[in-house]
Amino acid sequence: MTVPAQNGIPPPAKLQDRSKLIPFSPRLEEGRALAEDVWSIFNAANLPDDCINLGQGYMNFGPPKWVTAAANEALQAVGPNHYSHPKGRPRLRQAIKDFYEPSFGRELDINSEILVTSGANEGCYSVFVAFLDHGDEVIMFEPFFDQYLPSVTFNGGKPVYVPLHPPTNVDKPTSKDWTIDFDELRRAITPRTKMIIINTPHNPVGKVFTKQELEKIAVIAEEHNLLVMADEVYDCLVFDDNEHVRFATLPGMWDRTVTAMSAGKAFSATGWRVGWLVGPPSIIMPTLAASTRIVFCTNSPLQEAVAAGLEQAKTRGFFEQQTKEYLERRATIVSAFDKLGIKYTQPEGAYFIMLDISGIKIPDNYPFPASLNGRGRDFKACWFMATHEDIKVSTIPVSEFYCDEHCNIGENYVRVSFCKDNDTMKAAGERFQGLKKFLTL
Amino acid sequence: MTVPAQNGIPPPAKLQDRSKLIPFSPRLEEGRALAEDVWSIFNAANLPDDCINLGQGYMNFGPPKWVTAAANEALQAVGPNHYSHPKGRPRLRQAIKDFYEPSFGRELDINSEILVTSGANEGCYSVFVAFLDHGDEVIMFEPFFDQYLPSVTFNGGKPVYVPLHPPTNVDKPTSKDWTIDFDELRRAITPRTKMIIINTPHNPVGKVFTKQELEKIAVIAEEHNLLVMADEVYDCLVFDDNEHVRFATLPGMWDRTVTAMSAGKAFSATGWRVGWLVGPPSIIMPTLAASTRIVFCTNSPLQEAVAAGLEQAKTRGFFEQQTKEYLERRATIVSAFDKLGIKYTQPEGAYFIMLDISGIKIPDNYPFPASLNGRGRDFKACWFMATHEDIKVSTIPVSEFYCDEHCNIGENYVRVSFCKDNDTMKAAGERFQGLKKFLTL
Ligand SMILES: Cc1ncc(COP(=O)(O)O)c(C=O)c1O
Ligand SMILES: Cc1ncc(COP(=O)(O)O)c(C=O)c1O
Repeated sequence: MTVPAQNGIPPPAKLQDRSKLIPFSPRLEEGRALAEDVWSIFNAANLPDDCINLGQGYMNFGPPKWVTAAANEALQAVGPNHYSHPKGRPRLRQAIKDFYEPSFGRELDINSEILVTSGANEGCYSVFVAFLDHGDEVIMFEPFFDQYLPSVTFNGGKPVYVPLHPPTNVDKPTSKDWTIDFDELRRAITPRTKMIIINTPHNPVGKVFTKQELEKIAVIAEEHNLLVMADEVYDCLVFDDNEHVRFATLPGMWDRTVTAMSAGKAFSATGWRVGWLVGPPSIIMPTLAASTRIVFCTNSPLQEAVAAGLEQAKTRGFFEQQTKEYLERRATIVSAFDKLGIKYTQPEGAYFIMLDISGIKIPDNYPFPASLNGRGRDFKACWFMATHEDIKVSTIPVSEFYCDEHCNIGENYVRVSFCKDNDTMKAAGERFQGLKKFLTL
Repeated sequence: MTVPAQNGIPPPAKLQDRSKLIPFSPRLEEGRALAEDVWSIFNAANLPDDCINLGQGYMNFGPPKWVTAAANEALQAVGPNHYSHPKGRPRLRQAIKDFYEPSFGRELDINSEILVTSGANEGCYSVFVAFLDHGDEVIMFEPFFDQYLPSVTFNGGKPVYVPLHPPTNVDKPTSKDWTIDFDELRRAITPRTKMIIINTPHNPVGKVFTKQELEKIAVIAEEHNLLVMADEVYDCLVFDDNEHVRFATLPGMWDRTVTAMSAGKAFSATGWRVGWLVGPPSIIMPTLAASTRIVFCTNSPLQEAVAAGLEQAKTRGFFEQQTKEYLERRATIVSAFDKLGIKYTQPEGAYFIMLDISGIKIPDNYPFPASLNGRGRDFKACWFMATHEDIKVSTIPVSEFYCDEHCNIGENYVRVSFCKDNDTMKAAGERFQGLKKFLTL
């Protein structure tokens, strides 16, 4: 195996000359930790200046003014500029308790059942640190949020992949048509299975797992004593008549479930790095021990602002209004896809659309950068759409969210984000019409 | 071995009934990760309301107004509320480059030699993730910053302790009188030694390592191909005529050294969680791979504010002014100690004083909480001073910063922080006079 230096990263320890370099940890040799990732390849800096960015999942608008005002108020005081308790600021933990108790259907103890983290990302990472032992297997559904993979392997875990199966022969598919094969899921379980990750609403499929699906997972979790990570960072974005069911609310599941949430998604503040975990003390307290060492605590002024956000969201009707705006954006982009006559999956939640690229015919002689060598058709389609004069919309290839064995499923899709204002979505929708002459269907 | 449940944390995996609980990782059973730590015991909530807090190392004043103004400006824009590049925002990396190049005596490449982290803490943690392999030994001088210990063991490392030796028979000791026994340091090296941590200016001793001392460490680092973590978070606070020498500037040391710095200490903003690492690409890039998975990126608006801080610090003479203020605070508290006739170590840098408590006679029947059972004399002295009616000043016991074997050295000291405004230091100085009747010397 030859692993070339990438991104200026030196080759793995076994290929290093110990007399010259300090070798890095073998854990970096696994889990794609050093590979050039999809975000770097499709970084705006590598694409045309006037490309419309529907790639990365952040908004082109900021948090609500009444939330940033609360941040500024915190900045003017003394305490909120200094270390917070590693569990999170009491005001924020209280606001989380008040806001989420109804949806968890139980009282939440702010001292042992809520943990503020530096984004949902650091929350999930801390759970892996706190619970994984060498060789523990972690089941994740494909396509998976790409951070899970190296976060699991860094902590000695072994990812085990179970694909969501894409719609076949469905005329107008929705994310409901992406399905779990429960026999396949059962076959993935071994005596070393420790944990299963459920992401609902799902990035990138938009699937909102049904109660029936979750109940079947619950039976398996119970049977094999699994820890369940319920990544529900998009819980504030559920569309149409779909019901978001929290896995933790299923009978018997509270004790084995940790739910991850994110102020970045809830308040259009992805750069604030504030998230939180909710779960039983037996999961939260070991995770606190991990998080305390990793970051010590989460930044204080923005915790205060997020507290204000949760305190006022209900009376302001904030999440209802926000959902309406996202529905409008979704309508804009899917009507453009309909006009174009390209297939896609209508999402029930979150802010991504799976665009089916199997019908796009990329010109034979189209020039691709070296970073795409050996990558799937979806990488080429993304590059083509981002750089062709008549299109210039950037998206994200979906094979990146599959293991090597299953990446052929992902190769048929690119992820289109609709977390941009409606004017941008309209402009992108028009640009997509430039694809017309390259469609074979 | 019986490990009792503490802080609501269930007992270690081997003592757990797997049918009832999800067992946590064995890594939490090491490195004091689950023990009730000194910060919890001496938390303000456990002490009298009117206690003066010279315990934790955060300020009772906020960051400069011109820095918080820059934070608010960032909050009003769109981009600085969203994800930053995992390396850090370009503006901040540029500001770090411009500000620090002179003190590193070299050009710094913002793409491969600077990494913004979520506090120095997450920066150091990421280095451990990126470089430690199971069984790698990490040398740390005692007393050590307590986060190092579990951060090393979480990542498979083995801490190896080398004490700084306290002054003996010195009438008015300074932190210079805390010395390294280099034979002892050499004896601590084994074929598994991977890394050495140097903290200068030192928390809690206040020692600013001399060039001679650092040179001797450099010889050892070279000889054994060690990675050096130079924790220089207090580099902006060096007093009197002491010269802060960056370890990375010693001949040949750049390639093996990563230097950690902190906006929390530099700008009185410990709760902002912004820090940075400077080092060669061979260290920074693997650490980036780790940090990207752990937190993805550091909060964006406060990165912008810290950039403004570094951009303007020089023309505003900010650090000179800040150092003057700390000198005044130091003078206030040491003159109170002199008046009282108690021994202490005059610090050359940082904002802590080691108070020698060997002469304090704690009344025999003084009541202590159960959390102090089995802890050293310094824990009792801290509790006594924090709670006795005539004193009520909280400090931190120093034995916590030693391994069990060496904690008898630390038992003679408590750490007094002087990062509070001068009026508070004056008030504390007066309160300390209440100790007079309990001094045996
Ligand atoms: C499924 C999923 N989980 C977790 C995260 C991380 O959220 P945060 O930005 O709060 O760290 C994301 C962000 O895109 C996500 O899509
Ligand atoms: C020696 C030392 N290193 C690192 C840190 C962590 O700094 P930060 O608050 O930037 O994470 C501290 C904080 O007290 C410290 O004293």
